[in-house]
Amino acid sequence: MKVAIIMGSTSDWGTMSAAAETLKEFGVESSVHVISAHRTPDLAADFAKNAKANGYGVIIAAAGGAAHLGGVLASMTTLPIIGVPIKSKALGGMDSLLSIVQMPSGIPVATMAIDGAKNAALYAIHILALNDEALSAKLDEFRRKQTQKVLDAKIEF
Amino acid sequence: MKVAIIMGSTSDWGTMSAAAETLKEFGVESSVHVISAHRTPDLAADFAKNAKANGYGVIIAAAGGAAHLGGVLASMTTLPIIGVPIKSKALGGMDSLLSIVQMPSGIPVATMAIDGAKNAALYAIHILALNDEALSAKLDEFRRKQTQKVLDAKIEF
Amino acid sequence: MKVAIIMGSTSDWGTMSAAAETLKEFGVESSVHVISAHRTPDLAADFAKNAKANGYGVIIAAAGGAAHLGGVLASMTTLPIIGVPIKSKALGGMDSLLSIVQMPSGIPVATMAIDGAKNAALYAIHILALNDEALSAKLDEFRRKQTQKVLDAKIEF
Amino acid sequence: MKVAIIMGSTSDWGTMSAAAETLKEFGVESSVHVISAHRTPDLAADFAKNAKANGYGVIIAAAGGAAHLGGVLASMTTLPIIGVPIKSKALGGMDSLLSIVQMPSGIPVATMAIDGAKNAALYAIHILALNDEALSAKLDEFRRKQTQKVLDAKIEF
Amino acid sequence: MKVAIIMGSTSDWGTMSAAAETLKEFGVESSVHVISAHRTPDLAADFAKNAKANGYGVIIAAAGGAAHLGGVLASMTTLPIIGVPIKSKALGGMDSLLSIVQMPSGIPVATMAIDGAKNAALYAIHILALNDEALSAKLDEFRRKQTQKVLDAKIEF
Amino acid sequence: MKVAIIMGSTSDWGTMSAAAETLKEFGVESSVHVISAHRTPDLAADFAKNAKANGYGVIIAAAGGAAHLGGVLASMTTLPIIGVPIKSKALGGMDSLLSIVQMPSGIPVATMAIDGAKNAALYAIHILALNDEALSAKLDEFRRKQTQKVLDAKIEF
Amino acid sequence: MKVAIIMGSTSDWGTMSAAAETLKEFGVESSVHVISAHRTPDLAADFAKNAKANGYGVIIAAAGGAAHLGGVLASMTTLPIIGVPIKSKALGGMDSLLSIVQMPSGIPVATMAIDGAKNAALYAIHILALNDEALSAKLDEFRRKQTQKVLDAKIEF
Amino acid sequence: MKVAIIMGSTSDWGTMSAAAETLKEFGVESSVHVISAHRTPDLAADFAKNAKANGYGVIIAAAGGAAHLGGVLASMTTLPIIGVPIKSKALGGMDSLLSIVQMPSGIPVATMAIDGAKNAALYAIHILALNDEALSAKLDEFRRKQTQKVLDAKIEF
Repeated sequence: MKVAIIMGSTSDWGTMSAAAETLKEFGVESSVHVISAHRTPDLAADFAKNAKANGYGVIIAAAGGAAHLGGVLASMTTLPIIGVPIKSKALGGMDSLLSIVQMPSGIPVATMAIDGAKNAALYAIHILALNDEALSAKLDEFRRKQTQKVLDAKIEF
Repeated sequence: MKVAIIMGSTSDWGTMSAAAETLKEFGVESSVHVISAHRTPDLAADFAKNAKANGYGVIIAAAGGAAHLGGVLASMTTLPIIGVPIKSKALGGMDSLLSIVQMPSGIPVATMAIDGAKNAALYAIHILALNDEALSAKLDEFRRKQTQKVLDAKIEF
Repeated sequence: MKVAIIMGSTSDWGTMSAAAETLKEFGVESSVHVISAHRTPDLAADFAKNAKANGYGVIIAAAGGAAHLGGVLASMTTLPIIGVPIKSKALGGMDSLLSIVQMPSGIPVATMAIDGAKNAALYAIHILALNDEALSAKLDEFRRKQTQKVLDAKIEF
Repeated sequence: MKVAIIMGSTSDWGTMSAAAETLKEFGVESSVHVISAHRTPDLAADFAKNAKANGYGVIIAAAGGAAHLGGVLASMTTLPIIGVPIKSKALGGMDSLLSIVQMPSGIPVATMAIDGAKNAALYAIHILALNDEALSAKLDEFRRKQTQKVLDAKIEF
Repeated sequence: MKVAIIMGSTSDWGTMSAAAETLKEFGVESSVHVISAHRTPDLAADFAKNAKANGYGVIIAAAGGAAHLGGVLASMTTLPIIGVPIKSKALGGMDSLLSIVQMPSGIPVATMAIDGAKNAALYAIHILALNDEALSAKLDEFRRKQTQKVLDAKIEF
Repeated sequence: MKVAIIMGSTSDWGTMSAAAETLKEFGVESSVHVISAHRTPDLAADFAKNAKANGYGVIIAAAGGAAHLGGVLASMTTLPIIGVPIKSKALGGMDSLLSIVQMPSGIPVATMAIDGAKNAALYAIHILALNDEALSAKLDEFRRKQTQKVLDAKIEF
Repeated sequence: MKVAIIMGSTSDWGTMSAAAETLKEFGVESSVHVISAHRTPDLAADFAKNAKANGYGVIIAAAGGAAHLGGVLASMTTLPIIGVPIKSKALGGMDSLLSIVQMPSGIPVATMAIDGAKNAALYAIHILALNDEALSAKLDEFRRKQTQKVLDAKIEF
Repeated sequence: MKVAIIMGSTSDWGTMSAAAETLKEFGVESSVHVISAHRTPDLAADFAKNAKANGYGVIIAAAGGAAHLGGVLASMTTLPIIGVPIKSKALGGMDSLLSIVQMPSGIPVATMAIDGAKNAALYAIHILALNDEALSAKLDEFRRKQTQKVLDAKIEF
């Protein structure tokens, strides 16, 4: 199963490239799309409705401000959606965060930290690893390295 | 031209009935709908795409929490959309407000105060009155009465 | 009908010029004014009271901090007012936003996103297009181009 | 010099009566008015422009939500204005507070705590006491009693 | 694969029972636990480290205030964690939300809305349905019914 | 009567010099002091207790973060205190603002906008002008010039 | 060494009695005082300056709104101060929290959660237990019981 | 007794070095560690469980975002924990602050200001000075110098 990385605007790529890189490092197939909930609503609907049939297992949706993308996609598919609130100029991303996380009962969107692109990819991998032992092993290895990196950190004082 | 009052949930009616009543008082034809951006996305799209052809001039969209309704409708029509953020249990409506008002460039939603149902109706009337002298006169009369009511207010001390 | 773009301070022009440019692109006549609710209250009153007679159909009012301009104008005209909260130095525009959007019942101000100058112009056009088929067609064309621009976006990875 | 207590709505009186009572206790002449910045803008202008000539020395202005009253009055008089943000239903008065306190350079409004009606009256008394020795003595006595009341407080445990 | 519902306190059960009920309705096996990140850290570690071996596929973690439970569990398992911020007395759950959602890079927690217990269960089902056609069909049916319920809603006016 | 400008730290002078300059322009005698509520509590007490006897009429107190200076001074004098919340690095001055404005009943501090140094000086002048016709005339003249400056503003488009 | 529990107002006792009870349970001597930073500044100074000589080891200071009490006491003693932000009516205690926690460099106040009276007592005990083995053992026992209580919790479903 | 300075990430050292320097100036032995609650949970547990036996008296824990470090350490030791919320990119440290300060009843963490590294060290010294007269004298001397520095401050105007 592939992972789709969808952004509301090309300007989100500076943040979201970390998601694509992380998925690549884990050998998870992904594709990157610019789809705006508001400027290309039909494309958003088409993508969401056909995502499962097109081989996607998880969709990462990143948007800022009135960040409706995750909710709009979630309304038209039962694939797990992972929302990434993009930091906004005026309000630091509090608007993006609340627009994504406060979804009404019935249509969940799993929300990451503001600008949490890498974690969105990792969470997609957590999901896919549930039925993929090789991927699960990579995740364990990633965790081990991550732990070791902190253990090796040295502060000079 | 009619005004559509759309709510994301029947629970919003306690707040939004004030909009319907105000439009009625001004003699503006309106209809009331429960359409959820997330639970009935196809209905939302159908309504928005056909609203102009169906004789609507303005759409009032009320929702709480991750309040995407206004933005979703706005993405599929060029009719003026008026968004009403519904007060939410946990965050008082700050989530609803930011989800509605912080729309990206290109797709505006005119946002009212939290629970500002009556003002949404009045704003719709302001818009329609631009080309309706009789309605404009009613608005002037409404303002005069509203002013008079404050002028007549008495505080006993 | 013309659109008035009113700012509380010349320093808002860096943001609000986008509104003037958008109106120009759509061929909508507009004028730009610096009127402060607090420093030039009489001018604000004069402008609002005479706006309709002077041929204006919509007023865009931009201000930051304790942003009273939109409310002050709205109190003296029944023309639709569109408020633009200007990003503020200390609080990112949350003060501007709440000062504009939380209007009391009876006097609505249609609020755009923080620094949402372009959307203010577009919303004015949405309003005027209700009774102007040519303008409505331009809006449709604008939407089409806007959609196409997203469809054409390419992310290299 | 008298003190004017002005409210945007009769519903504010439950909070603002404390201001009237405090002024009465100090023997400071006051009057209570319902004047809405948005519903009775002309009355607001008239009151502010004539306040000095009418014998007022300080104006207390209370309002909630997009609380423009203090700023509107301040724009038309050089009498000291004391603003009282009224607690609002949705946002607890944060909207009222920011709408009053974040005034632009040139037109100050002295802001009290949310629902700080009594302190508004006391601050007016502080100002008037600068040139009124008898009032100043009453203020000293008020402080002494207030201090004593805390000193006398007993917690049973 | 089972779903674990973990709460930091028995007082969270009033909110979280909706998650247990939802899972039951979908026929997904679940278990309910009270485990405090701060009062029973060893139990939290034991549970997380053994969750996969014990047949769990997804863990729902609900907590309020400084809501560390989700993060603490996530640090010791690669199972997908779904965090539910519980509404708090003083700050409405903003503290709970930020404590859960703002996880650092490397250890994601999928965050739901404040008090979003039902959506947490649904999201777990979304994840499990990726490899369970029968469950996926139930999800489709749930969506259909949910949609129909909105379509059937009637507002009397 | 003189005006005292008191800052909690020399780092506030970049902001507060505007207050000193404004008072100078109006010919109001002032003095500038660095007094920390927390680092020099005895000096703060001494200054406040003797301020009236030393010829001060108004005290401007500027501080950031847990900005206790205004409240500490206010507790020891009945002179009007004007508080200026200094913009803070982490929270933009929201902490400073709430620390100053939310004073308990009995001890008011008149709060200006974040970094509102000039308005603090102007408000002191408003107070002093109540009993100083010449100063009042200067204030009228200041207002006239301020109004004229806005009237003369030109936007090139 | 004794622990002082100081409140700004008798109305805080409903919250702060939990601190007194906790200290009593641990057999730590304490005393309860109502001292207002603003209404009884001299008493606050006297208490703080003499606290060490009077046998106090830790001071718990609880206040709401512009909660200056902890900072005022901290400025006049080097005993550890523990601040408890009391939930406030309008802003839920965010004002109290920021007023206490955002202390400037040089004068720390250890801040607990909003209404965190019990934790304030426990933290005082943590401090005193550093040099009191018997108290340290009681703390270990408290933790064991607290853990056991969670372990014993049963959810019926 | 030594003081441990623990950071969640090496990137916190720019802020936290001030704590190490302050402890050094006071001659208090300290050690600096990078321990992540989420990336090295076992190390966190080991450190906390053995801290007392290893001669530590106080632990300073600094983290940003979902800052669980202080709470995680506090759950496994009865040594006093001092939490330092690190300023975060998106939300200015409000997330860090709430994640640290809003600890549940039973497990206190003493919270400092955002980026309050120096105060964390000073507070540790306040605690240790309770049973160390020489250290207490140094603290008095520090206060005296700190006061003198403010007294010596000169503003040129």
